[in-house]
Amino acid sequence: MKIIIIGATGTMGTYLSAALENEHEVVRVGSDSGDFHVNITSTESIELFFKQVGKFDALISTAGPTYVGPWSKMDDVAFRKGVEGKMMGQINLVLIGQNYINPKGSFTLITGALTNEPQKNFANASAANGAVEGFVRGAAIELENGIRINAVSPTVIENSPQYFPYFPGEIPTTMRQLEFMFRKSVFGTVTGHVITP
Amino acid sequence: MKIIIIGATGTMGTYLSAALENEHEVVRVGSDSGDFHVNITSTESIELFFKQVGKFDALISTAGPTYVGPWSKMDDVAFRKGVEGKMMGQINLVLIGQNYINPKGSFTLITGALTNEPQKNFANASAANGAVEGFVRGAAIELENGIRINAVSPTVIENSPQYFPYFPGEIPTTMRQLEFMFRKSVFGTVTGHVITP
Repeated sequence: MKIIIIGATGTMGTYLSAALENEHEVVRVGSDSGDFHVNITSTESIELFFKQVGKFDALISTAGPTYVGPWSKMDDVAFRKGVEGKMMGQINLVLIGQNYINPKGSFTLITGALTNEPQKNFANASAANGAVEGFVRGAAIELENGIRINAVSPTVIENSPQYFPYFPGEIPTTMRQLEFMFRKSVFGTVTGHVITP
Repeated sequence: MKIIIIGATGTMGTYLSAALENEHEVVRVGSDSGDFHVNITSTESIELFFKQVGKFDALISTAGPTYVGPWSKMDDVAFRKGVEGKMMGQINLVLIGQNYINPKGSFTLITGALTNEPQKNFANASAANGAVEGFVRGAAIELENGIRINAVSPTVIENSPQYFPYFPGEIPTTMRQLEFMFRKSVFGTVTGHVITP
């Protein structure tokens, strides 16, 4: 199976690439690293990327820039970081990528527990996550040729301890749990689901 | 109580204005009708609007433009209708309006069942709703001075039978249910909730 991993050189993408590359053809994609580069905030860049990479069976996205910071500095401009990044970036990967994916392929986007479990400084991520999860449910009933779409929604990631202080009481998601959530989406049969640990 | 109703001349806004105006000072706001005009897709227009209307106790929004139509025509440009309208329009009403609302005031935004119950042609609304609901949860823990925020999430509205064919099996929300959902948010104590019929 040819699997594209967007955000392949980040914490999650590095682990997933290593976990899947022995069994599958993994295409590592980053904004400025990896086998291919893509700027997910640009529809032109996304279109060019898919033209270069060609047909594929699964797309995994772990790319989710959002504004993290004090509420007092949260204005329309700050909010756009999550709107253009984690939200429209991932949504456009699907809207454009559906023209390049093989029948019975799958898209798996990243959201997170913040959708329903807010934390201080992260309202932009809560909104972007909610948008992506709503989109996943809406797209699942529209995509044709057996193409599926799901969201993977971890809590704070085990391998990102620098974030633990911002998520008091949140039990970290282990890398193995993360891998298995993505495996359920890519190799399983569900569509329109938000997969949690 | 001084209550601003955004979308006051629409189906929901007209009903709510009539229901609340005997007990409260209702400020009717529309894009080009009502006591005041505001273009919620423009932060400049929102800022000017709040300067004109002055301090208030509650803001109710029933304004939610989204792209409704075939999936085949859903691209980045079409998707922006819901991003700028129902999503960022309502979010900016809060981000800017928080500087004008009285202590212990409330914001009540409109979402809808499509967040979790998708229908064909409405993926843009599912995403915008999900974003607003995530934002509501995130904002509820950040707003100060006792200011609350909730979303009201009806199914298809009883007084909009033209939409019934798009929502098979969905039991319509009556206007009285709609009114009481908004009453719970405005006059009750909950915050960060998504209120359903």
